[in-house]
Amino acid sequence: MELPERAIEGILARWPVADLATRREDGRAHLVPIVFARVGDVIWTAVDGKPKQGGELARVRHVRRDPLVTLLLHDYQQDWTLLWWLRIEGRAVVRTPVDPEISEQAAAVAALREKYPQYARVPVLGPESTLLRIAIVARHSWCASPEAASRRL
Amino acid sequence: MELPERAIEGILARWPVADLATRREDGRAHLVPIVFARVGDVIWTAVDGKPKQGGELARVRHVRRDPLVTLLLHDYQQDWTLLWWLRIEGRAVVRTPVDPEISEQAAAVAALREKYPQYARVPVLGPESTLLRIAIVARHSWCASPEAASRRL
Repeated sequence: MELPERAIEGILARWPVADLATRREDGRAHLVPIVFARVGDVIWTAVDGKPKQGGELARVRHVRRDPLVTLLLHDYQQDWTLLWWLRIEGRAVVRTPVDPEISEQAAAVAALREKYPQYARVPVLGPESTLLRIAIVARHSWCASPEAASRRL
Repeated sequence: MELPERAIEGILARWPVADLATRREDGRAHLVPIVFARVGDVIWTAVDGKPKQGGELARVRHVRRDPLVTLLLHDYQQDWTLLWWLRIEGRAVVRTPVDPEISEQAAAVAALREKYPQYARVPVLGPESTLLRIAIVARHSWCASPEAASRRL
């Protein structure tokens, strides 16, 4: 069964982590976990101050070449009747350097700070000053039971 | 920093869930969470008896067309110094119907049953009797701190 709309809204507002798939130069999927904030029909994630592997991040390089991305949100539970997942197809663009005079970008940074108290100590924007803006194009979901949808949201 | 080898071995042996990326007909990544068991250099996952959306599963159809898959394992923690991820590139094949006379397939089913007590109640093999065999081709990892690698493994 699919997740009810109210559960999807709750997950997009409060779930802390998603897996982002971008497309590598060779066509294969590149996967990385991200933190994100949702503002309207857009999901924002920052190239933040958490430690990174060197150079421009693969996810950023990939999005410049191919904007179509996929996100997966889910919760693993030992009780398999509580499993659910939410898959988002999106169209991403790179915003760099971030411009706080642009209200959409200022709102994205504010939403990330509000959702993650961790950003009091880790800079939301690393030295690259980069946001990914992911417009939600489609959503698909699954849950194992009605109870799965109401848990932890 | 990368995860130490011992941590990677522990994660592959005991981490309960991974995100599987397969390639859709249109080239985009398809993502779904899976449970899995590792036997040697192979990761096995079953089309099990958990409820599914109808028809042959997308992941199976995709692997028949393009065997290159990516797996992501990670743990979200509020303490961002404890974050880690492990990404596996693999080459997948579909084994259906599963043949218990083939020792590799029997071992895979046994490993799944041993790792997941849930399979006492949910059939390891659903009506499709299908396993995905994913040979590990490459591994990449990241962790935020030495403490991240030793947690929960």
